[in-house]
Amino acid sequence: MRIHIQNDPDDPLFEITQADWQAAAARAHGSGLDGSRHDISIAASAAGFAAAIGEAEALVSASPLVRRLFPAPAPALRIVFCTSAGLDRLAPFDWLPEGAELWNNSGAHAAKGAEYVLMALLMLACRMPEIAADQRARHWQKRYGSALAGRRVVMVGLGRIGAAAAALAARHGMVVIGCRASATPHPDCARVVAPDALDDELPRADAVVLACPLTDATRNLLDARRIGLLRAGAGVVNVGRGAVLDQDALCDALAAGRLGGAVLDVFVPEPVPPEHRLWTTPNLVMTPHVSCDDPASYNAISLDIFLANLRAWRAGEAAPNRFDLARGY
Amino acid sequence: MRIHIQNDPDDPLFEITQADWQAAAARAHGSGLDGSRHDISIAASAAGFAAAIGEAEALVSASPLVRRLFPAPAPALRIVFCTSAGLDRLAPFDWLPEGAELWNNSGAHAAKGAEYVLMALLMLACRMPEIAADQRARHWQKRYGSALAGRRVVMVGLGRIGAAAAALAARHGMVVIGCRASATPHPDCARVVAPDALDDELPRADAVVLACPLTDATRNLLDARRIGLLRAGAGVVNVGRGAVLDQDALCDALAAGRLGGAVLDVFVPEPVPPEHRLWTTPNLVMTPHVSCDDPASYNAISLDIFLANLRAWRAGEAAPNRFDLARGY
Repeated sequence: MRIHIQNDPDDPLFEITQADWQAAAARAHGSGLDGSRHDISIAASAAGFAAAIGEAEALVSASPLVRRLFPAPAPALRIVFCTSAGLDRLAPFDWLPEGAELWNNSGAHAAKGAEYVLMALLMLACRMPEIAADQRARHWQKRYGSALAGRRVVMVGLGRIGAAAAALAARHGMVVIGCRASATPHPDCARVVAPDALDDELPRADAVVLACPLTDATRNLLDARRIGLLRAGAGVVNVGRGAVLDQDALCDALAAGRLGGAVLDVFVPEPVPPEHRLWTTPNLVMTPHVSCDDPASYNAISLDIFLANLRAWRAGEAAPNRFDLARGY
Repeated sequence: MRIHIQNDPDDPLFEITQADWQAAAARAHGSGLDGSRHDISIAASAAGFAAAIGEAEALVSASPLVRRLFPAPAPALRIVFCTSAGLDRLAPFDWLPEGAELWNNSGAHAAKGAEYVLMALLMLACRMPEIAADQRARHWQKRYGSALAGRRVVMVGLGRIGAAAAALAARHGMVVIGCRASATPHPDCARVVAPDALDDELPRADAVVLACPLTDATRNLLDARRIGLLRAGAGVVNVGRGAVLDQDALCDALAAGRLGGAVLDVFVPEPVPPEHRLWTTPNLVMTPHVSCDDPASYNAISLDIFLANLRAWRAGEAAPNRFDLARGY
């Protein structure tokens, strides 16, 4: 197949190189898939894209770019693989060329993202948000935390990141309550509930983790009313999307000392501007949307996912990472 | 036996109550040990101690107190059990009544302490010390971290905390190099070296964890020269004792941006005074000596350890937690 790889010139840390491709093809070959029979072009410029897209059958693209690349004449294009998992920022999907299907990079973030969630749960159990505030104030104040075993976490979203995080939390003895649209049971969850049962679970939780995609159904899911249902001292973690949470209501609850702390990796807007109240809200730990990406392994994992999907697709099966445009994930 | 429990009036969070004792005795009874045949007295005052110690055969005491309690006429006393693991602050041990042996609380801190170390290793891998500095400066700066798998940690000390931390680190795919006086192999360590081989390991480490007791042999173990052997970007964790580390040399290396960060729970002196440079050293995360203590379970674990040791001692065996006065742990 003719495959074009379009890199983001503003994000050189995640540039996919010929060497990355060859290594992935060799892994696919080694594991019985054949990744070596494709014609590969790689570009980072608009001119490079224009030169290649006319004959490309598959496009591998950094996600923030892809909306700007189209419209473009791409009569042979059957697959657009974006190297992000959450594609909410690409909606509406009217840019997608007719005849092409959209694949996301779900799965690339599971290992790193789950470790970030585990770190956040440990930081909340150890009362690190309060202790960090003490440190800034040069104030020595014993604040004893607790071990994870027996603590109760509500994991909203059991996609690749949420499921991997649930597995780690359960392995450390936490009681994990899953929450997803289907409410299907999950082996690492004591129980899985549908979003309409969330109100019953929140008052008993020590922590809530948001690991779901942003869709019409999840926008503002943890709103002011639900934040009010959390018990005093509970913690909030967000690795999904900023808009799943009422950020302002969370800041109010933290400023009032009602919650134990929050560890957030995603915000509205990003980057967070210097004057935003988030920066100075007490007991809030912020990271700049880096929770789930490990540059050392990201391209390798992404290409492995692409090639595994390509193999399924070429065998006439549904690609596991095919993005459902209507559902939004 | 006549057992006296002396609580620290300045530390009410860790007060051992009659209910704690009865619960521990019931657990011992349930597991085939008999903890119920003892006469128990409990006090927090000097008068309460004086009234009980004359007939006590065993003393259970909060550690900071015990040096101040003696000398006192204690002709029947055979056991002093301190509810801390590191008893360096009780040296020299000339206060210990003749005929009594000293037991420490080694083991009580393993689960909580190991989780703190795991949290610290995750924070270093996620570059949280740098990201926290960005947050204070209201500065949005992408800093990508890495997953734990494949990262290399040198674990100095393989006592209860160090061994439990090594197990967690190994479970997350880290390469753990142990370091202890005996250099005896350990199942969770790729290799265990003696302290004199530490210089060969430091340049290859992503992180060094100090989890050893403070003794003449470990004082200033991670000195300026050894800190200089660490590679650029490496991290340091200390859950042992502040004096195991040259704190000033570490601050210099952090201030120079040579290291990736440090997560310290123990210091010289404690409490750290407000004017100390530690508070403002960049990329340093400080916690107020709380890493290994979970008040919710501490007394239960402590009394279980005491009763298990008492059973061994009454059977004529060596108590596993008998403190070696010469060795210092």
